[in-house]
Amino acid sequence: MSTSAASGVYVPVVTPFDRELRPDLSRLEQQCRWLLLQGAGLAIFGTNSEANSLTVDERLALLHGLVERGVDPQRIMPGTGCCAFPDTVQLSRAATQLGCVGVLMLPPFYYEPVSDEGLFRVFAEIIERVADDRLRIYLYNIPQLTHVPIPLAVIGRLLDRYPGQVAGIKDTSGDWPYTQGLLEQFAPRGFSVFTGSELILLKALRLGGVGCISAMANLNPGRMLELIRHWQSPEAEALQADLARWRNVFPPGLLIPALKAVIADGRRDPEWTRVRPPLVEFPADETHALLARLREQGLVISGLAPE
Amino acid sequence: MSTSAASGVYVPVVTPFDRELRPDLSRLEQQCRWLLLQGAGLAIFGTNSEANSLTVDERLALLHGLVERGVDPQRIMPGTGCCAFPDTVQLSRAATQLGCVGVLMLPPFYYEPVSDEGLFRVFAEIIERVADDRLRIYLYNIPQLTHVPIPLAVIGRLLDRYPGQVAGIKDTSGDWPYTQGLLEQFAPRGFSVFTGSELILLKALRLGGVGCISAMANLNPGRMLELIRHWQSPEAEALQADLARWRNVFPPGLLIPALKAVIADGRRDPEWTRVRPPLVEFPADETHALLARLREQGLVISGLAPE
Repeated sequence: MSTSAASGVYVPVVTPFDRELRPDLSRLEQQCRWLLLQGAGLAIFGTNSEANSLTVDERLALLHGLVERGVDPQRIMPGTGCCAFPDTVQLSRAATQLGCVGVLMLPPFYYEPVSDEGLFRVFAEIIERVADDRLRIYLYNIPQLTHVPIPLAVIGRLLDRYPGQVAGIKDTSGDWPYTQGLLEQFAPRGFSVFTGSELILLKALRLGGVGCISAMANLNPGRMLELIRHWQSPEAEALQADLARWRNVFPPGLLIPALKAVIADGRRDPEWTRVRPPLVEFPADETHALLARLREQGLVISGLAPE
Repeated sequence: MSTSAASGVYVPVVTPFDRELRPDLSRLEQQCRWLLLQGAGLAIFGTNSEANSLTVDERLALLHGLVERGVDPQRIMPGTGCCAFPDTVQLSRAATQLGCVGVLMLPPFYYEPVSDEGLFRVFAEIIERVADDRLRIYLYNIPQLTHVPIPLAVIGRLLDRYPGQVAGIKDTSGDWPYTQGLLEQFAPRGFSVFTGSELILLKALRLGGVGCISAMANLNPGRMLELIRHWQSPEAEALQADLARWRNVFPPGLLIPALKAVIADGRRDPEWTRVRPPLVEFPADETHALLARLREQGLVISGLAPE
């Protein structure tokens, strides 16, 4: 492969919106720069970015905007998977031409069930149409939301056919035997397995995982990177337990409104609380309780507040 | 309301694709004209139209193309519901300005679960932004694929706030108590309830339903219209049974590849078999068996073949 494979922590960066619910490039850039300083990469347009509430043109404008403002595209892995494959092609081609480290690609997620053959064909169609050897696809397996799992057999077939372009996966299946299958069957072939949850990061690193791409990385990517650096050291278990402590302070389910509430507090900027419908912003009383729990637990996010 | 409400049979017209998998306007027009001759309306861009495999620009081009070629927009109810509300706004505004009878609107279908408040807000946001009194929304409830059911409480709230624009629903819930709730609570307020399956058409008509929007209408809209015309007559039960006979010849699940195979046969035009991935065209052997079953049962689609 001509470019280096992605590893470490990539953050599905939450997307700020202005009063008219338009994406706010300046605030997004600010947040991205803070995350880069922690050593994280930028998986913009992930689930937690409300990417599926953004139009293709909005995603293109944000991506171009960040790169024009000097964010290194080799630190960006934008989400490009849409329901209609021509949209996925357009976004993936733009990201590849900009020099992004890779793209994070959901399967089309409306029609279901989808056959293995159909799933193979749609990824193949996209790869053939992007027609760029620099394309690096990280498949995005999140059957809880797509209801379209990506079976090991399909990944094997894609790897056989497109070994250069099929670079890895973000696995949010929550199904450890599946994750283990990915690591055992494909990691030896240079396939990069990111866990979608930091709670199984150590377990995956021990089997050849390369990192994680997780909602909570919006707040504490540094802790995750520390575990990745020290997974073979005696303190690895304690670092893993610390990540669980962070996660457990938050409510179960989709974290987007809560993450935005915490960032808004850290930045002293209520604009950050805004979400696009069908999401609803985190209630004020729950925000107070959440912030109190973080304080009680001594969990501190530093460097977000304006100087 | 300034325009008349939709009723009868609207067909989620299957979308033909050319060799490059581009939508084929000419073949779509041809099929639409055949359906109009049977007395049906055109719910283009439905689930069975592979609408979620089409980009916004492709949908706009097809819609404008049909109207430019003389198809009456008052007979068109295009699907406009996308995951990102600005896409839904753009499509719904275009359809309204073209004079379409209404739009069939899926809720955003990636993020879940969605609160009642979030679901109300996204429909309200769309209505406010289209900002056109001529807008007529037919909600599209198909939780099997969206995993976002549209609760009665949300519909009631939308009707209270936007009585002019919230015109009806296509209900594919498969949940009769819900369908009955729609009919009893909202039909008396002029809310038009279409069933998503023709198999409960008679049951719904008896409680005030106005028609159906169903996959099988691609092949036999005339029989459904006959039932709608004669639902109070002694032959209503027989007409309903006849619709079940048609449906039972087909495999369970998504019908798109099978419908296209039958149309391709009827038109003697193999181009019609093509689908966009992640769907896969209907296998040749299954097509032969399906056509044989139709013949055996005496189920004939007339007027499709070229003169």
